[in-house]
Parts: sequence; C-alpha cells; structure tokens
Amino acid sequence: MAVEEVLSDLKKKIEEKLPSGTTISSVEFEGPQLVVYTEEPKKFADNGNIVRNLAKALRTRIVVRPDPKVLMPPEESIDKILKTVPEESGVSNYHFDPDVGEVIIEAEKPGLVIGKHGETLREITKKIGWTPKVVRTPPIKSRTVQNIREFMRTNHKERKDILKSVGRKIHRGCTSKDEWVRVTSLGGAKEVGRSCFIISTPESRIMIDCGVNVGSDDNMTPYLYVPEAYPINQIDAVVLTHAHLDHQGLVPLLYKYGFEGPIYCTPPTRDLMALLQLDYIDVAAKEGKRPPYASADVREGLKHTIVLDYEEVTDIAPDIKLTFHNAGHILGSAVSHFHIGDGLHNVVVTGDFKYEKTRLFDAAVNRFPRVESVIMESTYGNSNATQPSLQEAEQNLQNIVNSTLKKDGIVLIPAFAVGRSQEVMIVLEDAIRKGIIPNVPVYLDGMIWEATAIHATYPEYLNNDLRKLIFQKGQNPFLSECFKPVDSNELRQKIIEEPHPCVILSTSGMMNAGPVIEYFKAFAENENNTLVFVGYQADGTLGRRIQKGWKEIPISTREGTHVVKMNMNVEVVDGFSGHSDRRQLMSYIQKMKPRPERVYTEHGDERSCIDLASSLHKKNKLETKALTNLETVRLV
Amino acid sequence: MAVEEVLSDLKKKIEEKLPSGTTISSVEFEGPQLVVYTEEPKKFADNGNIVRNLAKALRTRIVVRPDPKVLMPPEESIDKILKTVPEESGVSNYHFDPDVGEVIIEAEKPGLVIGKHGETLREITKKIGWTPKVVRTPPIKSRTVQNIREFMRTNHKERKDILKSVGRKIHRGCTSKDEWVRVTSLGGAKEVGRSCFIISTPESRIMIDCGVNVGSDDNMTPYLYVPEAYPINQIDAVVLTHAHLDHQGLVPLLYKYGFEGPIYCTPPTRDLMALLQLDYIDVAAKEGKRPPYASADVREGLKHTIVLDYEEVTDIAPDIKLTFHNAGHILGSAVSHFHIGDGLHNVVVTGDFKYEKTRLFDAAVNRFPRVESVIMESTYGNSNATQPSLQEAEQNLQNIVNSTLKKDGIVLIPAFAVGRSQEVMIVLEDAIRKGIIPNVPVYLDGMIWEATAIHATYPEYLNNDLRKLIFQKGQNPFLSECFKPVDSNELRQKIIEEPHPCVILSTSGMMNAGPVIEYFKAFAENENNTLVFVGYQADGTLGRRIQKGWKEIPISTREGTHVVKMNMNVEVVDGFSGHSDRRQLMSYIQKMKPRPERVYTEHGDERSCIDLASSLHKKNKLETKALTNLETVRLV
Ligand SMILES: [Zn+2]
Ligand SMILES: [Zn+2]
Ligand SMILES: [Zn+2]
Ligand SMILES: [Zn+2]
Ligand SMILES: [Zn+2]
Repeated sequence: MAVEEVLSDLKKKIEEKLPSGTTISSVEFEGPQLVVYTEEPKKFADNGNIVRNLAKALRTRIVVRPDPKVLMPPEESIDKILKTVPEESGVSNYHFDPDVGEVIIEAEKPGLVIGKHGETLREITKKIGWTPKVVRTPPIKSRTVQNIREFMRTNHKERKDILKSVGRKIHRGCTSKDEWVRVTSLGGAKEVGRSCFIISTPESRIMIDCGVNVGSDDNMTPYLYVPEAYPINQIDAVVLTHAHLDHQGLVPLLYKYGFEGPIYCTPPTRDLMALLQLDYIDVAAKEGKRPPYASADVREGLKHTIVLDYEEVTDIAPDIKLTFHNAGHILGSAVSHFHIGDGLHNVVVTGDFKYEKTRLFDAAVNRFPRVESVIMESTYGNSNATQPSLQEAEQNLQNIVNSTLKKDGIVLIPAFAVGRSQEVMIVLEDAIRKGIIPNVPVYLDGMIWEATAIHATYPEYLNNDLRKLIFQKGQNPFLSECFKPVDSNELRQKIIEEPHPCVILSTSGMMNAGPVIEYFKAFAENENNTLVFVGYQADGTLGRRIQKGWKEIPISTREGTHVVKMNMNVEVVDGFSGHSDRRQLMSYIQKMKPRPERVYTEHGDERSCIDLASSLHKKNKLETKALTNLETVRLV
Repeated sequence: MAVEEVLSDLKKKIEEKLPSGTTISSVEFEGPQLVVYTEEPKKFADNGNIVRNLAKALRTRIVVRPDPKVLMPPEESIDKILKTVPEESGVSNYHFDPDVGEVIIEAEKPGLVIGKHGETLREITKKIGWTPKVVRTPPIKSRTVQNIREFMRTNHKERKDILKSVGRKIHRGCTSKDEWVRVTSLGGAKEVGRSCFIISTPESRIMIDCGVNVGSDDNMTPYLYVPEAYPINQIDAVVLTHAHLDHQGLVPLLYKYGFEGPIYCTPPTRDLMALLQLDYIDVAAKEGKRPPYASADVREGLKHTIVLDYEEVTDIAPDIKLTFHNAGHILGSAVSHFHIGDGLHNVVVTGDFKYEKTRLFDAAVNRFPRVESVIMESTYGNSNATQPSLQEAEQNLQNIVNSTLKKDGIVLIPAFAVGRSQEVMIVLEDAIRKGIIPNVPVYLDGMIWEATAIHATYPEYLNNDLRKLIFQKGQNPFLSECFKPVDSNELRQKIIEEPHPCVILSTSGMMNAGPVIEYFKAFAENENNTLVFVGYQADGTLGRRIQKGWKEIPISTREGTHVVKMNMNVEVVDGFSGHSDRRQLMSYIQKMKPRPERVYTEHGDERSCIDLASSLHKKNKLETKALTNLETVRLV
C-alpha cells in the first residue's frame, strides 16, 4: 500500500471513530507520529479520551493540530495562557509556530502548566486554538539547552519537512516475504569504545550507537565502510543508548557522509550529545588533531533528532517499534527495546547500564512485555570484577575529604563532565547538609557545571528520591550554595593563588587535558593536599602514571615541559561506577522478566565479554555468545 | 599506485630481467595474466625458461604476444603448422585472432601439438610469429563445446575489453590499513541447494558459487538482496566450485542484475555450466514457470568466464590468489584454495567433494602449501550416514542387471546427466568388456550423451587410470560401441515399441520430467523389467513415490492423467555418490596437510552440518562451526 493510501485509510478510520459532529480536515505523518488537523481543536480538547482512544485503536502516536484559521493572535493568546495557568508555574517564555499550530511554553514548573492528566493544557487549547507544548525553564542557566531550543525554533520549517519525510518512510509498508533478523557488530564488540551495531530485517536497517574510541588512533572509528552500512541512507534510523562519546561521538560523521535519516534518543541524551560533540571537536583542535567532523555536522544531526521519553512505544521503521527504558547509567541513558515484525522477535539492547539504585538514578529496567534476545554491556563482566558498594565508596570519599580538610588541605577530584561528577556532587552536598563534612566550597570547573545544568533541566530523568526532593520539597541539590562554578579564568587564578580548604571537581577525568592540569600543577607539591580518583584511568594517561606512583611528573604545555614534584596524597575511590559490576550484570539477566532465550555480550575487553557470556550460559542455561566486530549473527 | 604506474613499473622490471638484446614493446593486463608484447617472439620461443623465470620473479602469470607486424599471413601459417606437428595429432581446425596474435588449433591429440615441455609450440611460434593455443577436438561431437568455442571466437573483441578491465581491477593495488577476512553465507548453510558465500576483505569481495534450489519455491535463491552483495558490481569475482545447478544455477541472474565482473572456473565447469543453465531455462519453460533469466544472460556469463586449470595459482583480486584442485565430485569440480593478503590467511572451500578414488576421478586433494580455515560440504555429515563402498555398489548393480537380462527384461536407470551417469556408464562398459554382463545395448537418453561428450573432451580431468587408458592405450571407454545415444524420437519410439533386453540410462534423475517418464510408462507393467535408483530421491518426486511402494501411479501429461500399474521390480543401489560419506568427510580433515585451525560446515541438512562440526571438534580439537545463512563469521 502506498503512503497516500495509508493516510486516506487512516483518515477514514479516524472519522469513523470520532464522536458524531466532530470533523477533521486532514492527516499527515510527522516523524513517528500521526498528525490530525482539525478546525475544531476545542472539541478534541473537551474530551481527553478521544485522542487516547484513537491512538490505542490505530496503534500509533497521535497529535491533534488546529487548522491555522482557528488560531487566536499570539498577543491575545499569551494573555489567555497567563490567565489559565497558576502563577507558581513560573512561565518565562513563549514561541508561537503557526506552521504546526503550536505554542511552546517555557515554565519553571511544567507540571503546573500541564495540569492533572493534561487538563490545563486542554483548557488552554480550548481558549486559544494553539496546541501548547511545555518545556522546563532550566533552573540553572544552560547554554546548551538554550542554544538547542533556539536552533530548533530557527529551523522549524526544515525540521517539519524532515519529520514529514521520516514519517512517510516509517509507514512505507512491508514488502518482503522473508522473515529474518540479524545483528552486525561494527564496533564495541570485545572492546570498549566505538560502539556501533546494526539490526537489520528484510525491511529495514537500524544503527544502534555510533561511538568513537577517543583513546585509539588505529581503531578510532567503527567499521562504517562495510556494505552493511552502505549506502548510508539505507539506514532507516540511528538509535542512541546514551550520550557518552563511545556511543555517539561519530554520529555527526554520518551526516557528513550524507545520511538524512533520524536519530532517536531521550531529550537529555540529545542535549548532552551536542555538548560532548562540540567539546570533542574543540579538544581535538586544541590537541592539533583534525576533528573528523565540523560543528555544522553536529547541527545537522540535531535537526534530525527525534526525542522519545522512557516507556513511549514508537514506530521507527515499517516493522520495528522502539521503547526506551531507564538504564541507570547517566542522565537519559536508555535500555532500548525493539519489537520486530508482528510479534516476530524482541531484542533488548542494554547500552551501558547500572542495575542498582544510585544517588542519581533508579536501577536499570529489566521487565519487558516480551524479550527473546538481549545484547548487553560487559564492562565488569570478568568473574573477579566485583566493585565495592556505593555506600563503601561514599564513606571512603567522606573520610578522605575530612582528613584532608583537617590538615587545611585541598581535595582535587578529576572527573568526567557527565555522570560521576554529578554523583559525587550529590554525595558531597548531602554530607555537607548533614554536617558530615565541613561546609567548604565545592568548585566545579571544566564542562561539569554545564553538564549539571542539563541534569537540573530534566529532573524527570533522576531517581524517585531526587524527584520527590525537587518536586515536592522544592529542594534541588544541584542548586545548593556549596557549589561554585569556576566560570572565569580570574576565579581559577584566585583559587590557585590563594589556596584554602576546598573540594575541586574538574575535567578531564583522566587528566590528559582540561583545567584539572592547572590545579594539579599548583597543588601537587603540598603534602597536605589529596588527589582523589573516582574513575578508571586508561593506560598512557597522566592519571595512570600518577596511580603507578611516579614521583616526578613531566607536564607539557605550550610554554614547554615542566616537571611537577609529586608530594600530595593519592587516593583511589572505587565503586562510583555507572556500570553494573559483575554481580549486577549476572542478576540483571537472572531476574529479567520474561526470561530471554539468548544473550550476546559486548562493551568490555575480550576476557570480560567471553567470561560473562560463558558464566551466563552456565548459570542460566541460556544460549550466549560474545559478539565479534565485523560478524553478523542471526536472531531469527 | 595507479595501474598505469604498476604497468610501467612491471615493464621496467621485465626489461631488466631479459637476456640482453631481447626487447619488448609494451605490457598490459588481460584478466589475471600479464601480456608482454614483443616484435621478437622467436627469441622468447627460443628459450622456454625466459617466461617461466619472469613469471616466478614477478609472481604473476605471463603470456608473450607477438606484435602484429611480425605475424605470417594465415594461409602460409597453416602450411607451416602442418609441417611442424606430427600427423597423428589430428589437427582439425584453426582460428586466427590478429588482436591477440593467437592461433587456436583444434587437434585430436593436443599433447602432440604442444610437445614435451611445450617444445613444439615454441617451434611453431618461431616459424609463424603467432602464439599457438591448443584445444582438443571433441572425440564425441559436442554441440555445447562447439557452440561455446564459436561464441568465444565471435565475441573475441568484446572479450578482450572485458579481460583488460578485469586485469586492471585485479591490479588496482591495496589501500586499507585494516586487516580482516569475513565469510558471509547467503545460501547453502544448513541446507542443500542455492549455495552462495562471500569472502570479503577491506580490499575485495569474492562470491563463491551462486546456486539455485530447484526443488523449492520459497527458498529458491540465495539472499542476494542483502547489503553484502550490493551493489552487485562491488563483487570482484565469482568463483565456481563445480557445474551442478545448486552451485551455479543463478550465475546468469547476476549478469541480468548488471554484474560485470569475471567468473573463475575450470574449463569443464564452464561447458557443463552452460549446458545445465540452458537446460534449466528449458525445463522451467516446459513446466510453465517463468525462468529467472534468459539465454542472453547465460551468454553474458560465458563472455565473462575465465577458465583456470587445476593447480594454477592466479591473482583474482588485489589481495587474493585462487588455486583450484581436484575435488573428485564431478568433471571439473574444484576444491578452491584462497590465499589472502601477503600470507595473512588461507581458506580452503571444498565445494562438493569425494575423498575416495572413483571410476572417473582421483580422490579430492587435501594437501596445500598453507591452510588455516576450511569451509566444507556436509551432505553425509550425519554420524550414521555411512554409505556402501563403491565395489559393493558395482557388484550390486551388476547382479541386478544380470538377473533382469536373464528374464529378457529391461533395466531402466533414471540418472542426472552430469556425474553419476558417466560413473555408471564406465561400470557397465567395463563389465560388458570383461563379459561379466551380456553385451546388450546401453541406451543413453536426455542430456546424458551431451554431458558424456563433454567428459570425453577433457580427459585431463579424469583419473589416472582413465587418462592412461585413453592417452597410452588409445582406448576411450566413452567411445565404446555398447553405448547408443537416443538421438531421435524415432529411436526412442522403436525402443519402446519393440522391447528387447537392454539397459536404459535416462534423465531426469528423480523422474520428475524428461524421457525417463516415457520409458517408465512403457515398461512399468512388465514384472520382468527393473527400475534401478542410483541417486537420492527427494520428497515430492515421482522417484520417491515409487520408492515408497506406490502400486498405482498417476502420471500427468499434456494428454491428461494416466494411471500406471506398477509391476516392475524396484531396486536401490546406494554407494554411487559423488559425495564423501561420513567416514571420508572425517578423514579428509584428519589427513589434511597442513592441519587447519578452523572448520566451517555447510551443504547438508541442519543435523548433518551440526553433527559433522561437533564430531570434527571432538576428534581433532579444532575450532568448528556450522555456518548459518545470513550470518557473517570472521576468519581474521
Ligand atoms: Zn557510557
Ligand atoms: Zn560505554
Ligand atoms: Zn555500551
Ligand atoms: Zn554437486
Ligand atoms: Zn551441491
């Protein structure tokens, strides 16, 4: 069936199902959803069940849009909106988009604009005709979030065309009589870095992640040149599990190569992705390397990004439905569930995940309507890769901070901008609030503050406890006064030149670049200070050299090489990992509901992937296999 | 390095290595070989070692061609040739090709035209300038061989262009820094029929076989639509293990889809392939099915076919060398050895093979310079798939023939045109010559006679004993007077209407079509006659129904359905198989030199492939795996 037929078919079905007297003018696909245009948006708004029932009956996501002729002028509309929403909602900005009949309302408390079951939103629609969409005013000003929102507004016409074309491709219909499902590993199998997989069927090809191995020159990129990824536009969609560079760092390269398809990810993943990609280009340039793509390619990716919240079932290809679930790894990280064919097969791709509740996130989801195959990460898959508990890690960190501060020393913590930084921040804030450690300033330098602002923008993606704290008690730990962003060179100079007891969290996490180097040079020679590693230090990095116990450390800067005498204490705090440890990996599968038939391991060194696969096989009598780059396995 | 550079480089190297005073005018690639043009062909002909040494030094196949200006006119040349070769050589035809400076000489005894170590050939060159190529005059007139030779002559200009372009592609040079080798199964894994594999490296893609599953409508063709085979011209070459339809039946389809690359196979495989493809089209049309390609596509394939003899090491891609070895399965069947990269990896693809000397062929070769991976057939891979020995089978057949003839009955043997027919013919001829069975006519109907003519054209591809018999004793068993080709409807009618003691070998092998049906209808009701099955009868075929013991057999023809009363004896003679039985499959690997590291099984039902893989693993401590269609495994 051609798309035009599908649409006129859908229109007929909708008209049949509508309460008598309600009319629609047309229907059109827009990305994965179906847009219903009507001159009577009020009638739809009157009855919240209409759309819900239609979506259920047609098994697709539906949006109702007013016909342009029934829209109230913007000025008047703002007035009406302000009169409709409670003042405490903190509405701060509007954007009217006549093409789609939408008004985007930025508010400090989006929930109050939405109302119970969307009541307030429907109220607004009835009054002004426009369809309101609500986004949160970032409680900490985030350059990234602001730029992306503005960029999307500026390009809304082009974006509308993109979404229409994506939507029509998704609904092109199935044609093959064959039934099979294959998974090809282009990167990230028996290794960490450059994660990239392709799930393909006779109808469609989905790429999952497209990472970069920042640490490697030879094996930096996935094998994107093989036929499975060629021609690039035969890929229907790219699905991103989360925003770490080893999972999305080369997505802009796809657009540079001419890719025109959509990216699916959660809203926080989109924002963190843009932040980290632009930083990646920046760092490469600073290191004198040629970055593989330009910022224009990053923007091209953004234009093609379609965000999905957790638990939204979405058609992304004629025969594939995608649902994201919380992965507990970093903000917006998603366990991705693919339903293929009409009940043919279900694959869960875990991405990086943490099967334990942490300070920031709930434990990764492992309950699904159906699941036959699982593709899972294996970072700590080795049988002896058990980590200390989070409680132990926190205790450990608190003790180190306390004993350093007692000596009037400075605690320097190198950390990645996204993930562990925020975890450590919450631990410190909690300890300071409860008086467990003294109330000293916690300086945040490098990209950490910007990443934290993005965390603050999406509290829905944090765990239950934090959500309650923020929404019900109005107490956002990220806004605590103990945190001091280092937002100028002057402030950094001041901290260095006038040392005082404090904690400094700074990028980069392995000390190969970033402001952490400045602090290190300034504080290394004082034996009262402490350097605390909370993350893995790869071979060849400065962090690793320090862990090995080097006492004289040459540091090259533009001014030449400088030898730093190493007198400060060095501590390693294990346990602050966003990855499941061995026990958690095992029980994630053991407790998965329903029980899967097959498990494929990836994202770990060779031994970890093989060890985990064989242990899972022995324990659970499952078919298991460690994936290999450039191999294709058949799921069906 | 661009091809032009490569060529000028080679020219320089050749000039350096030539004896002083010997000059060349130019060099050019032609298919896998390097052509050296010279105005002094006599000097090259004077010294047989020049070319041999050059080929060795440059590690490539070299052909020396005279510059057109030094060629003697054809009329005079024929005179000189006739004066140079011994009369007994039986020269019967010539074709002069001025484009390549070649004269093709058809002779009954090519060996006598070639002379010891090519002495006579060099003698001819010295006298006439032309490079002589010798082919055998088919001792039995073969329409196929004649047509193909004529077709090649008619299209020699187009063919020259094809070969030049193939040659330049082979020598395009390597560019990737990655090193990997993958094998993708597109058909023939855990099944028999539609064999098709792709070996790929960062530099090249080679398709091995492209068969059709004649018996299946749903799974007839390999998965040619997947990206690994797309675009079709990214395939560098197609290599054919042998001429059975399940290995080459869809090669013309590739040309219909726009493929322009070469096919590599042995000379008998080329001729049998054309015969079987044209017959396949024919049968499909007769059955009212639409054949997947037309005879024009068959011819297109022929134009692109490059024949290689056993043991010729040949560059077929920038990083792949191919060598064919005897496989013992049917005429021209080849175990294909691929040397990949500069010593990176060696893969042996067995194709169908018989690891036992038979009446027609020597046992399959399992000694190679190097081998790491083996991809092997598993038809009888199941642990209980042991077959009677050939001696038992022969004895059995002789007894059945004798007891039937004693009752003045007729022996009807349905058989495939290529392979078992000729085996059975040799057994019968031998028995008649030795008086073991009476001297009755052995009628050959259907394509059997034509296939036999092709066998007679290539005695070099038969086993040692037969070669000796033919070349040294001048006694070609295929020419025996006991064989009577049924070359007209009249003769067939006569045999049916005037029944007399005889043996009839007729296609098709499973009795689903062909003249065998006519004989069956005529002879089934007489209990003195015997029907002998020498090959496998698949489900759903008439042959299978008879084996099951049906007593009344409905046969549909154009005139309607006719019920045949089944009174004749039915015998099954196992053991006449071109496939290795289970024991032979096991010992082929056990005795392979050198010992391979990994074995992949294919070409067998699921149980056979898995059983063989696991037995080989247990017995030999090898890594083994049964391949799966649509999966890709990594060899390196
Ligand atoms: Zn991650
Ligand atoms: Zn990762
Ligand atoms: Zn991962
Ligand atoms: Zn065969
Ligand atoms: Zn076969």
